[in-house]
Amino acid sequence: MTRERLYLYDTTLRDGQQTQGVDFSVDDKVRIAEALDALGLDYVEGGWPGANPTDSDFFAAAPTLKAARFAAFGMTKRAGRSASNDDVLAQVVGAGTDTVCLVGKTHDFHVTAALGITLEENLDNIRDSVAYLVEQGREAIFDAEHFFDGFAANPPYALEAIRAAHDAGARWIVLCDTNGGALPGDVTAAVDAAIAAGIPGDRLGIHTHDDTGMAVANSLAAVQAGVRQIQGTLNGLGERCGNANLVSIIPTLLLKPAFADAFEIGVDRKDLAKLTRVSRMLDEILNRVPDAHAPYVGANAFTHKAGLHASAILKDPTTYEHVPPESVGNRRVVPMSNQAGQSNLRRRLSEAGLSVEKGDPRLSEILDLVKAREDMGYAYDGAQASFELLARRVLGQMPRFFDVERYRVMVERRYNALRQVVTVSEAVVVVNVGGERVLNVSESHDPESDADQGPVNALSRALAKDLGQWSGHIADMRLVDFKVRITNGGTEAVTRVLIDSEDDKGRHWTTVGVSANIVDASFQALHEAVIWKLIAEEAADA
Amino acid sequence: MTRERLYLYDTTLRDGQQTQGVDFSVDDKVRIAEALDALGLDYVEGGWPGANPTDSDFFAAAPTLKAARFAAFGMTKRAGRSASNDDVLAQVVGAGTDTVCLVGKTHDFHVTAALGITLEENLDNIRDSVAYLVEQGREAIFDAEHFFDGFAANPPYALEAIRAAHDAGARWIVLCDTNGGALPGDVTAAVDAAIAAGIPGDRLGIHTHDDTGMAVANSLAAVQAGVRQIQGTLNGLGERCGNANLVSIIPTLLLKPAFADAFEIGVDRKDLAKLTRVSRMLDEILNRVPDAHAPYVGANAFTHKAGLHASAILKDPTTYEHVPPESVGNRRVVPMSNQAGQSNLRRRLSEAGLSVEKGDPRLSEILDLVKAREDMGYAYDGAQASFELLARRVLGQMPRFFDVERYRVMVERRYNALRQVVTVSEAVVVVNVGGERVLNVSESHDPESDADQGPVNALSRALAKDLGQWSGHIADMRLVDFKVRITNGGTEAVTRVLIDSEDDKGRHWTTVGVSANIVDASFQALHEAVIWKLIAEEAADA
Repeated sequence: MTRERLYLYDTTLRDGQQTQGVDFSVDDKVRIAEALDALGLDYVEGGWPGANPTDSDFFAAAPTLKAARFAAFGMTKRAGRSASNDDVLAQVVGAGTDTVCLVGKTHDFHVTAALGITLEENLDNIRDSVAYLVEQGREAIFDAEHFFDGFAANPPYALEAIRAAHDAGARWIVLCDTNGGALPGDVTAAVDAAIAAGIPGDRLGIHTHDDTGMAVANSLAAVQAGVRQIQGTLNGLGERCGNANLVSIIPTLLLKPAFADAFEIGVDRKDLAKLTRVSRMLDEILNRVPDAHAPYVGANAFTHKAGLHASAILKDPTTYEHVPPESVGNRRVVPMSNQAGQSNLRRRLSEAGLSVEKGDPRLSEILDLVKAREDMGYAYDGAQASFELLARRVLGQMPRFFDVERYRVMVERRYNALRQVVTVSEAVVVVNVGGERVLNVSESHDPESDADQGPVNALSRALAKDLGQWSGHIADMRLVDFKVRITNGGTEAVTRVLIDSEDDKGRHWTTVGVSANIVDASFQALHEAVIWKLIAEEAADA
Repeated sequence: MTRERLYLYDTTLRDGQQTQGVDFSVDDKVRIAEALDALGLDYVEGGWPGANPTDSDFFAAAPTLKAARFAAFGMTKRAGRSASNDDVLAQVVGAGTDTVCLVGKTHDFHVTAALGITLEENLDNIRDSVAYLVEQGREAIFDAEHFFDGFAANPPYALEAIRAAHDAGARWIVLCDTNGGALPGDVTAAVDAAIAAGIPGDRLGIHTHDDTGMAVANSLAAVQAGVRQIQGTLNGLGERCGNANLVSIIPTLLLKPAFADAFEIGVDRKDLAKLTRVSRMLDEILNRVPDAHAPYVGANAFTHKAGLHASAILKDPTTYEHVPPESVGNRRVVPMSNQAGQSNLRRRLSEAGLSVEKGDPRLSEILDLVKAREDMGYAYDGAQASFELLARRVLGQMPRFFDVERYRVMVERRYNALRQVVTVSEAVVVVNVGGERVLNVSESHDPESDADQGPVNALSRALAKDLGQWSGHIADMRLVDFKVRITNGGTEAVTRVLIDSEDDKGRHWTTVGVSANIVDASFQALHEAVIWKLIAEEAADA
């Protein structure tokens, strides 16, 4: 059976940018566009040229895409002028993209209430704008705003509006559930009507929002009803509850026979393994914590906590996994806190160079300690380095490099003699190394930004300043990230600090500290970061 | 047309607890069960009696529910013994609930591979277990594990298994998509087959997981195919990608004609306004940041950022909202950073007692300042109190209560004379009040937990210790929450601190501080919290 081609249109850079708190830079947009192109998306919509300086600059920079078509977004011309005389439309067309997507009204109420023009004028706007794009040699896409609400309110007018776009030469007419309130039954009925009105399915697209939690289901229902283009965003980014999540849709299209047997898409099966990375990249750009429960790509999407499930998984992963985690670039996790996690624990220990026999009672001891410390607020699934140190303590394999006798950190804000506000952080750390007492003191002033970087930075510098014979071993380590979370340790609120460190040898490790006192929690994590690095250096030397 | 009754079964306390990192206490469970009961859920599943101490204690405490039926969960008896002789089942039945839900196998592969018993033995286990519950006078529910995978692999056996439960007297046979891989078409086909096999729809339920982002759609597809019970959890809590989210399903059932005209549920239209609060309560218990993009109840679910949308919303909210936000207890937000947000800005100012004429140029000045500060890392949508102070500065309506001359905070960890580790935080704040210099010093030792609570707590105490004539005004204020986030301020990583404060008069306010130095960011937020409180007290006195 030959499979039909289904097209994927990404609007992360345009509709995704409508999200509260999201403001991509030109560099962000370039990075995302290139990742979408490499993944195999058919269309990458870059933004609205002329709507804001970033979008204009991005189109001026014109990213080079290998396979994806680059699209500019805008709106149909306004009433009372021709398409060639509309300055807003001129900027969109002026961006010079091969593909141009224009949004227009198809819901009678919006035409009269929001635009304040006649229904006939609106049809003229659609017709003339699309025809103008075609005249200019562009691939024209028409986004039929509020199509499903419009179809429910006034079916003949909604259909007439999309037919106007079709007859004027639009390559795609995209049916938009702008308010996100449609259900799959509504979508199917409206798509059926559009096809019955003479627009073939391979000219129709679908654009949904997640206001009822149905954006993905509505997109797939539309495909099953006949549309052949899906618009969506990475991670479902978008205004209100977000757009259809392409990261959820793509694996379903490739891995589920109901779709994979019927359709072909631009994303290759082998490139699907990039998906988790692409999804995390967007969160990283947005400085967001990735959704651990996201379908396919979430950190917990293949985490098996339930006792029965975890033991069955060890027998055969297909018992509790609908697809293999590696197919989407994700991984299976059996939490150590689970009884069935002993074999997982042994694997983690052996990765750290600690081999422990199966059935060794110290394995339960480590699991119990992990559980007890997690109840206090520690999080070892995210802090492998601290987990290794904990295991070493239980196993009696913890080297003693130095002892911390005391530390003190001070933050002061005052006016200087010039009546300027100055902030100073200063840390003193006293350590004993090989029988010798060393007093280290550091400030945390950053000469580049002329800013004081605070007590954790000062402590980090002081701790690493002079560790006697070990100093050479830690010279290349750097603190790269610092995450703080208020959590519960038993009944009290405590602060959990996660510190990411790296070195010049490409190592990257995470440590955790917990305390009611944020400075103390940070110091624990810093201290463990140094110890872990010294162990790694010793192992490398050995 | 008479509407058919549809039943809602909540499993937050059982399947929701399978989530990585979730461990409810007995008190948490009581609080959640009572909220579900008050909302109008038909069934509240409390856990698995005997599986762990918390679940056993919770059933022993037996929460009093007004309308909901309380259910215990367990599994069908094991092979080789009778139902009355199975000790695991005995503990479940021993919890004494009117309703008991037992999970059993319906997928042949799981029977032979995971359980290692014959297909016939498994049918006996189902039959005998359900019959035993019925004998004991209980309402029996059978959770048909892996039903959709089982139906795909071996349809006759899967149907035979659920018919065994039905014929033995189960009130409900719940078709479970345990691995979460089914699509709506699979669900419809399998439900059709179950009904054709002689199990009426009003004896069938649906239990789905969100591994393809379809849990809600699959649940509603099953209802449309004939099932009359939906199992799900609050906020879609659950293992891997979570269970079907009842918080998304309930409003759709009540507000969308396709369901509201056909079905009646236990949740009343007027109680629907509790939904946002119930959803946030669960996050609060779990100490999670609520999902701002959640359908219906997310903080951004009715946030209109796009310029065109925001101005249309001001003309008529139905233009870009599929349901009224207040119907689910949520609210509309038009971000101030938006040009169309000027009227929203005036509303926020007037709520703070600051009336500004429409078109006053200072409105743009405030918007510009908000935008510039948000670029530095501030977040005013979450910190109304800091926003008010910013506006007052622009409007020249900022009273001067006191000046901070300097502060200093110190954290020290050392061994005391008994060789115990002690941590001490001490803060000094020097203020000028009415021409007088006041030096305040405080530690942050908490006598109850004997823990040092860190530099922010010490600063908070020192700042509020003696403010001369203003001291009486702030005596009843308390710091209730402290949130830290590393974010970007321009090109540098900075720390954003949000502080929630409250007082005895029921006021609750949030302030924000941003700096590369976490202590300095905290001090800004603390300082603004005190100023806001003093303004509120003055306004109350006036």
